[in-house]
Order: sequence, then C-alpha cells, then structure tokens
Amino acid sequence: MNPLELKTVALSADGQALEILDQTLLPAQVKYLSLTRQEDIFEAIRALRVRGAPAIGVAAAYGLYLAAAQSRAQDADGLLAELRAAKDYLNSSRPTAVNLSWALERMLRTAREARALPVPELKARLRREADAIREEDIAVCRAIGGWGVSLLRPGDGILTHCNAGTLATAQYGTALAPIYTALERGMTDLRVYCDETRPLLQGARLTAFELQCAGVDTTLICDNMASATMAKGKVDLVFVGCDRVCANGDFANKIGTSGVAILARHYGIPFYVCAPSSTIDFGVGCGADIPIEERPPEEVTELWYAHRMAPEGVKVDNPAFDVTDHTLVTGFVTEKGIAYPPFDQAFRALFPG
Amino acid sequence: MNPLELKTVALSADGQALEILDQTLLPAQVKYLSLTRQEDIFEAIRALRVRGAPAIGVAAAYGLYLAAAQSRAQDADGLLAELRAAKDYLNSSRPTAVNLSWALERMLRTAREARALPVPELKARLRREADAIREEDIAVCRAIGGWGVSLLRPGDGILTHCNAGTLATAQYGTALAPIYTALERGMTDLRVYCDETRPLLQGARLTAFELQCAGVDTTLICDNMASATMAKGKVDLVFVGCDRVCANGDFANKIGTSGVAILARHYGIPFYVCAPSSTIDFGVGCGADIPIEERPPEEVTELWYAHRMAPEGVKVDNPAFDVTDHTLVTGFVTEKGIAYPPFDQAFRALFPG
Repeated sequence: MNPLELKTVALSADGQALEILDQTLLPAQVKYLSLTRQEDIFEAIRALRVRGAPAIGVAAAYGLYLAAAQSRAQDADGLLAELRAAKDYLNSSRPTAVNLSWALERMLRTAREARALPVPELKARLRREADAIREEDIAVCRAIGGWGVSLLRPGDGILTHCNAGTLATAQYGTALAPIYTALERGMTDLRVYCDETRPLLQGARLTAFELQCAGVDTTLICDNMASATMAKGKVDLVFVGCDRVCANGDFANKIGTSGVAILARHYGIPFYVCAPSSTIDFGVGCGADIPIEERPPEEVTELWYAHRMAPEGVKVDNPAFDVTDHTLVTGFVTEKGIAYPPFDQAFRALFPG
Repeated sequence: MNPLELKTVALSADGQALEILDQTLLPAQVKYLSLTRQEDIFEAIRALRVRGAPAIGVAAAYGLYLAAAQSRAQDADGLLAELRAAKDYLNSSRPTAVNLSWALERMLRTAREARALPVPELKARLRREADAIREEDIAVCRAIGGWGVSLLRPGDGILTHCNAGTLATAQYGTALAPIYTALERGMTDLRVYCDETRPLLQGARLTAFELQCAGVDTTLICDNMASATMAKGKVDLVFVGCDRVCANGDFANKIGTSGVAILARHYGIPFYVCAPSSTIDFGVGCGADIPIEERPPEEVTELWYAHRMAPEGVKVDNPAFDVTDHTLVTGFVTEKGIAYPPFDQAFRALFPG
C-alpha cells in the first residue's frame, strides 16, 4: 500500500459528509468514517480519530462548510450567526494546534466577505474555500518536502517523534514530507527511527505504519531510547512537526519534543521543525503563552486497551504537548524555505504578509 | 500496606526454596513464588519476576545455595564442580547488572575457601553467606537512605526513573531509600515524579505502587514528559539507581536514564545515582565496555498484554539499559558516603579495598 493514497481527511464525493480515516484503529484496521453532524466532527477531533495540526485544520474547515450546507437560514445574517456558533464549538475541541482556529477563522472570514451573495452561492463559496484549504495543505507539504530533502544525504538516519506524516495532513505530511520526497527522487537508503510517542503511540501506530508501507527502513523505539540511539551515532538529523510556532520560534509539539531537542543539542545533531506557515502564530510572542492541552489520566494508566498498568488512584500528569525553546532549533522548514535564527527576522522575511 | 513489608527476595522458612514476589503481576496482584529448580530461578530472573540489580544478586546467591543444598556430591570437589556450572548458568540469565556475577562469584569464593569443611558444613556455610548478602543489602540500602536524605529539603520534588525501590532490593531500595528515610524522619511533604519507564513500565507498575503504598505524594508521568515536568520547575533533584558503575563513574541503568541525566543538566537540576558498592565494577574502565542487554521486540510492540500496537514486521530496537556519561552525574550516593567528581578518586577513597 502506498501511504500517500490514504485519504486522511476529505469531503465525500457527494459533498455531504466529512470523510476521515479513523486513526485510533491503526495499524490494525484501515477504516474510514463518514461524518455529518457537528457533534461527530467535534468528537472525531477530540478523540484523535483525525489528528495532526494541518489535518485538524482541514477537518474543521469542512466541518464549518457542512454546518453551512445543512443550514436552513434564509439569509446571510442568519447563516453567519450559525457559522459563528459552529466555529466556537469546533474550536473548543482541542486548544493547542493553531491550525484549528486558523482554518475556522479563514472560513468565517470568507463567509463575511461573501455575505452579499445569495445564500446558495455563499455556501458554494465556502465549499471552494474548504477545498482550497485542503489543496493548499497538500501543496504546502510538497513544498516542505522539497526544502527538507535538501538537508538529507544518502544513508542518513532520521529520528522523528509522534506522527507528522501523511496521516497528520491532507497528504505527504510535514516532518515526513522530506522522506517521501527523497523516495521519489530515488534516495532509498534513508533510515528512520520512530519514537513510539506515549501515551497514545502515534509513532508506533501511525509513523511506523506509514513509513513501513512506503518501504522505508523503519525502526521503532520507545521514547526513552532516543538518547541511546543518538549516542550510538545512528541519528544524523531530527525532523519533527509542530502544532503552534510563536513569533520568536518557540513552538509547541507533541509531548516529549522538547526532550528530543535537548538530546539533539547534547549530541550535536541538527534539529529541524517542519512547519507550514499556517502553524506560525504571530500573535503569540513566546512559548509560555501557548495553551497546553491536558488530557485524561487514563491515557497514561490504561494504555490503549484499558488494561490498568498503574495503581488505582495514583496522580497522573498528562500534558499532550510541550514547548521547545527556540534556542534548541536548528531551523524551521516552511513551504517558503528554511528559516534560521534569529527566527523572528527569518519569519518576517519569508512571510512578509 | 507498608511497602517495606513486601518480601522481594528471601529464603523460605524451611530453607528449601527461593521465595520471590512475582513483579510481573504488580500492581494488580501481590503473589509470591516459591522456586527450587535452577531453571525456574533462571527464568524468574530472565523474565523480570525478580529484578533490580541488588535483588538479582540476592536471588542468585540463594540460587547457588539451593544448588549446593540439592547436590548429592560426596566431596567438596564434586560440589564445587556443580556450583561452578550453576554459577555459569545463572550468570547467563542477564548480562548488564554486575551484582549478579558479583554475588555468584562471592558465593563460589566462599565455597572454595571452605572446601576443607565436611560437605554438610560447607553447605551451611553457603547458606550463611547468602543470608549475609541479603542482610548486607538491607543495611547498605539503609545507609544509602541515610546519606541520600541529607540532600533533601522539605517539599522537594524528586524525579526517578524505573524502579530502584524496595522491590529492586532486599529492602528499602537504593534511589527510593532516601525517600523512605525522609518519611521515617517525619519529612512527609516530598513529591515524587515517576517516569513510567517503557517498555516494561517498572515506574508505573512498581515505583508508583510502592510509593503510593507508603503514602508519598506520587505522580506518574510518561517518560517523554520528564522534560516538561522539569521545565515547569517541579523537579528539585533526580535520584536513580544503577546496574553497573565503571571506575570512571560512567554507569549503566535502565534505558532512558542517560536522557534524564541530559535533561537534568539542561535544566540545572542535580542528578544523583544511588549505588551500593556491589554495583561498582572497578574492572571496567568506562561505559563503552559495559555489556548492554537487548530484549525481545515484542516488549515494545505488544505492550504488556500482547495487544499489538505497531505494524507487523517493523524493526525494533530494545536495549534494556543505556550508559550515562560520568560528566552528567552530580554525585553517587553509596553506603559509605556521597562520591563527587572526580569519581575515580572518590571511589578509591570511599572503598580503599
């Protein structure tokens, strides 16, 4: 199976449903869900059936389109009121990834700007905007792959954390895009180390799955093996994705990313963050201001299949993300090029808008 | 339940069996096993039913005594030949912790030195030696607790990795001994963060269990949350155990320890290794020469209950230990005092023999 043929998130052929690959069932089962109700879309995001900052953005955009398509409002004012409510609702499903609010805000802005149109045309305009968000995501990931592959040499060992692959985006991924691009260019001898990424094992279940499908030399390790793997000289470069990048380059990504960055610095290994511009939040100055989602303790204590592995009643911390200080980042691989420190200047130069 | 009343490893009352608490069943079940056959003792060590460097040493010592007790050899030469075979067999159960070979070698040396005794008295001498190894372990852990507690201030947050508690020793533990000592002295407001310690979850299943039993404020975190926990200022000090310390202070301990040490250095947090002198291997100059056990990939891919969480056929690295460079260690807490750098000199001063 070519993992790039997996349809992580898309509109159904009849335009009436959001179709997602249910990632909670991977790697055992490849099953698609067809969602129409706002509650089901909210639940799918909240429960990580669709996850990854860019994919969440696309899912939310289609969610807002479906809210419009299903609306019985007779005029633009009524429709806009419903869309504002739907936006607030979907936006509350997860707090950390900025793509969610970015995509919802873009959809609502489109609706406001097109409010003079007849309602049916306004709805069609929203569908085109959601489609555009998805198509742009694919193009952006392709571009990230093109820039990122320039950092790779034949035989390189790459360590990645969590899943920032095709399953985290509409296609190609962010952190894995350079690897897929390398494959397309015939560089077939890369080695990838996947941190399993507790508690929800996105590295074991998703990254190892899609890279193995693609024929990449893939080795799964527990998160706490990253140091030993680096110490043995197996890792030439780290690629990770991100959920929100601040103006100064601090960024939030899956819990454990900051530890990987510190280890990479210790061992002298370049550490790159693959970041579509939709994850850069110029409104947040530094990492301390990023809201970090806390998830239920059972994710830690009961593993994936509800077998309790810790004593009853023990306290658990379960932050879903952490913040990596910008001083630990070698560069941000964006769709416009690679940003090097000082990042605030580099971001402004790449994204003057 | 007072965790110090758990009998991790002991000789049965009738002297005919090794009794261990089966740690693979914790925390769900407290079940003791009574082992007499060498094969069963080997399996119990290999399968981590009894684990922790000091506890393995005690188990192996009793294992060698039971080999002697069950022997039908008529003279010392015959008995010694059997004991040498039993030593080699048990010593092959796990490679990294030096306590295993240390205890076995001590038992065999005792037998050699007492070979002039009649065989029944020689066997009795071996039983006393195994008992002495167990009793010394308790005393050594007590002493480590006494030195280690001097490093603690009221309210401190302590991070620990894997389990180096009463379950890893005959009693008290090494890394947890300072915490039990603090409790005995009325310092009841310590906070302990337990890394869950993948793949076998000794932190979640064992450390969180015994600390919670003891009434300690215990928080379980995934291994990849250590960085975020430190970044939030929650950790004042790290205590870990060890499986083998080299002459220069490099040491092997549960996989992930080197990463914790690097994080602690990054965040400016003191990092102490609690090390009975039986884990110091003066014959090994530096960490690169420590044999590191590789364990089966299924430990990583199938979690604890054989539910596959990774794609079939994916490669897995599963080193059970890693080596931490001595430059990352603040001090070694031994039974004779705390060794500070340069460690080779400090070790020689503390242990002139």
